[in-house]
Amino acid sequence: MLELIDLDKRIPKSVYQQAFPELETQLGACQRAARAAGVPVVIVFEGWDAAGKGTLINRLTQALDPRGFKVHPISAPNEPQRLRPWMWRFWKALPAAGSFAIFDRSWYGRVLLERVEELTPKREWRQAYQDIDEFEQQLADAGTVIVKFWLHIGKQEQKRRFQQIRENPATAWKVGKEERKHHKQYEQWLAAVEEMLERTATAYAPWTVVEATQGRYARVKVFETILQAVESELARRQAAPKAEPKPMAVPADSPTRRQTLLDRVDLSLALERDEYEKQLKELQERLFHLEHDLYVARVPAVIVYEGSDAGGKGGNIKRLTRGLDPRGYEVVPVGPPTTQEKARHYLWRFWRDVPKAGHITIFDRSWYGRVLVERVEGFCTEDEWKRAYREINEFERQLVDFGTAFVKFWLHIDQEEQLRRFEARKQDPHKQWKITDEDWRNREKRGQYEVAVVDMLRRTSTTYAPWTILEANCKLYARIKALRTVAEVLENALKKA
Amino acid sequence: MLELIDLDKRIPKSVYQQAFPELETQLGACQRAARAAGVPVVIVFEGWDAAGKGTLINRLTQALDPRGFKVHPISAPNEPQRLRPWMWRFWKALPAAGSFAIFDRSWYGRVLLERVEELTPKREWRQAYQDIDEFEQQLADAGTVIVKFWLHIGKQEQKRRFQQIRENPATAWKVGKEERKHHKQYEQWLAAVEEMLERTATAYAPWTVVEATQGRYARVKVFETILQAVESELARRQAAPKAEPKPMAVPADSPTRRQTLLDRVDLSLALERDEYEKQLKELQERLFHLEHDLYVARVPAVIVYEGSDAGGKGGNIKRLTRGLDPRGYEVVPVGPPTTQEKARHYLWRFWRDVPKAGHITIFDRSWYGRVLVERVEGFCTEDEWKRAYREINEFERQLVDFGTAFVKFWLHIDQEEQLRRFEARKQDPHKQWKITDEDWRNREKRGQYEVAVVDMLRRTSTTYAPWTILEANCKLYARIKALRTVAEVLENALKKA
Repeated sequence: MLELIDLDKRIPKSVYQQAFPELETQLGACQRAARAAGVPVVIVFEGWDAAGKGTLINRLTQALDPRGFKVHPISAPNEPQRLRPWMWRFWKALPAAGSFAIFDRSWYGRVLLERVEELTPKREWRQAYQDIDEFEQQLADAGTVIVKFWLHIGKQEQKRRFQQIRENPATAWKVGKEERKHHKQYEQWLAAVEEMLERTATAYAPWTVVEATQGRYARVKVFETILQAVESELARRQAAPKAEPKPMAVPADSPTRRQTLLDRVDLSLALERDEYEKQLKELQERLFHLEHDLYVARVPAVIVYEGSDAGGKGGNIKRLTRGLDPRGYEVVPVGPPTTQEKARHYLWRFWRDVPKAGHITIFDRSWYGRVLVERVEGFCTEDEWKRAYREINEFERQLVDFGTAFVKFWLHIDQEEQLRRFEARKQDPHKQWKITDEDWRNREKRGQYEVAVVDMLRRTSTTYAPWTILEANCKLYARIKALRTVAEVLENALKKA
Repeated sequence: MLELIDLDKRIPKSVYQQAFPELETQLGACQRAARAAGVPVVIVFEGWDAAGKGTLINRLTQALDPRGFKVHPISAPNEPQRLRPWMWRFWKALPAAGSFAIFDRSWYGRVLLERVEELTPKREWRQAYQDIDEFEQQLADAGTVIVKFWLHIGKQEQKRRFQQIRENPATAWKVGKEERKHHKQYEQWLAAVEEMLERTATAYAPWTVVEATQGRYARVKVFETILQAVESELARRQAAPKAEPKPMAVPADSPTRRQTLLDRVDLSLALERDEYEKQLKELQERLFHLEHDLYVARVPAVIVYEGSDAGGKGGNIKRLTRGLDPRGYEVVPVGPPTTQEKARHYLWRFWRDVPKAGHITIFDRSWYGRVLVERVEGFCTEDEWKRAYREINEFERQLVDFGTAFVKFWLHIDQEEQLRRFEARKQDPHKQWKITDEDWRNREKRGQYEVAVVDMLRRTSTTYAPWTILEANCKLYARIKALRTVAEVLENALKKA
């Protein structure tokens, strides 16, 4: 691919002086249009050392409204970043709708620097190709414009620039041991770059190779490419307005739907209080020690609670955490997204909250809202919830690949028990706040919710992150089963760590 | 995933007798609607031995118009199939627009039988996941409905059925050594099935797990699923009519476009006739031996010729093939697609013609028409040619993975030389047929074609299938360079074989 690049491409100064100011004006207008249309834009700069990334990014930002972009310089991961799945820091940096995120180096470091310098085992950087593709596809599906630049200069040109930089005392520090080493490895890098360009050039996130021998030429090409990409997304949105989300229809009465896996859940399972107290104490002690071992072994854990309204999530979580050291776990209650969260990919806030190595995060409701409440109430389009099963499986697989222990609970109660609990809450002045009109409305949509729950359980119960159904008509039984499941999963994870 | 399946799902006879005839009628109507709308439908049946695939497919076809479907029973590949990339036979079986293709077992055999029985090395069946995803995504992107069924029964139920089948002398032959062995390996199969379902469940080609203990239940679920999938694609097409293809605009005059990689091609390169004759003879002899060695080593080769009009493709191919044994190579001239070809994915006809192991196929024009003439003339939409670069790279990678040697030529001449040749053809009564009004029209669009050619060369010159540009102002030079390139590529391929 790169052998076809003409590294001598140039633009005469006179042409440049005429064309460039016009491009700057256009880019400013284009940024305003993207903001108005709520289009997030991700721009990636990768390239050879001394290819001119810094200068280019500088010129680019001068043309932009400073309130609408953020530059992310990416170097080796720091401590908090190393303690999380490798994609975490890039998810965190995603731009809100209407903003530009400019990456000075990026997630491609995984298959460039980390590959060439052997900082990452081969198994891991090869897996990175899939992680990257999933990441970019998820963003693009949600309407993000992705522009990726590879700034290309030849080996001789790089040598020439290094000399120039070193001769100037003000810049000499820029060329150190690292850079000289990379220069010597030019051919190894080239092979890595070629493979990267081949494997990650997609229709939704294409690469643009920029001939960077002449700064003028590179600037014009970068500006033109960004303009074209953003304008093409704006045109696409105008031509094909987003499908209207609509609430789920009442499920058709089909003979294959009359009995679901939830009907098979044995809700008669129960536990006496004596037995409960005894087991609870034992399990809480066991979990306390496990939390400590987890910390020492640097194994992270995710525990997801989903379930019917009034299924007993809160009480269950309380029993789980009661014996734990609060420095080792965090409970993340998940409600409707904030304005800041709504402006980003729906998985963004969950990536933000993934546990660091050695810690436990308990999600009280979770990303599964996408295929439950958002599907049923029509807060997202059919396309969106349909592809969410795969996106969720990809998300969880990336966490598991990092070594995360995964527990997912569905607390199930039957209709009668739910009604009984609703009524009890209405009577009890201390619990009245827990029951709202929305709960009653949801109850009317039980049929739709049940279809959504069954689809969710079947499509997202994977070998690496399976669901556990908690028979929750008896709260005591459900709590003991939950604590025991967590203990077993953590023990297994520790064995493998 | 499969642990959540309720294998005891049943439908009472009375309900079935009411619901099923209605479903059959609906499916017939749905097939007619799909035909009218030109929607191709691919239905895959996978499942345990004795899960009832045969009976199900039988009932399904009874509900369909026999002119509109074809059943493809898939067993171990035969000789012609083994001699080609493994996906070849599935591409060949693709349905035309408006037809149903029903697969009784499918490409998933690669990650099931071939994995469990260790018929394929691990490296190969793991790679198959990517091949499968590319295949299904390419079909779905082009509007194919893909429905995949996994017929699920438990180990005990399978045992019971095997006994029943063996007790009946008319069916006893159906349970042989193979089936008994698979039954013993139930757990190994289960692991393979789980991984397959997890890795290949996409929004565009979802799996439906069918509880197949009761035939009635399975039938109803299969019919309902197909109906829903086809109807949803029909609704989608009505709601969002396909974008109108439009011819490429005259490229904007940008300072970065003024000089392309084609301008760097040194068209002064030439060869004297004496030298030409001498080298030609040597190269033709060398190629004759290489063709034979290729056959013995079972290495296939693909040679693609693309180039400017009047660039000299025909004469070049003639010199290449003159010394070859005609049993070992084939020239495939590529013109506008036939009706049969138009009704299928644009890559279908090229998959059909890939060489078998040990043979050479020379394509006189090729799949690159998608990103050249179809892009420039507006025979396909922007979405279509934009994703074609990746599709083509995927296609070529699958051939290279099979061991195919790849040569791709772009014959380049400049405008003056082209004009000279056009005029010469006009004068020569033996060559007048070679020059048409279309050639003159294409010449007027030279600017657009050049942009398309440069994009093509850069985006599809991969490490595994790079382009070779032939400086073709001097025909003799271009011929010698072509023959030498082919010889070198074949020699390298033989060394690696």
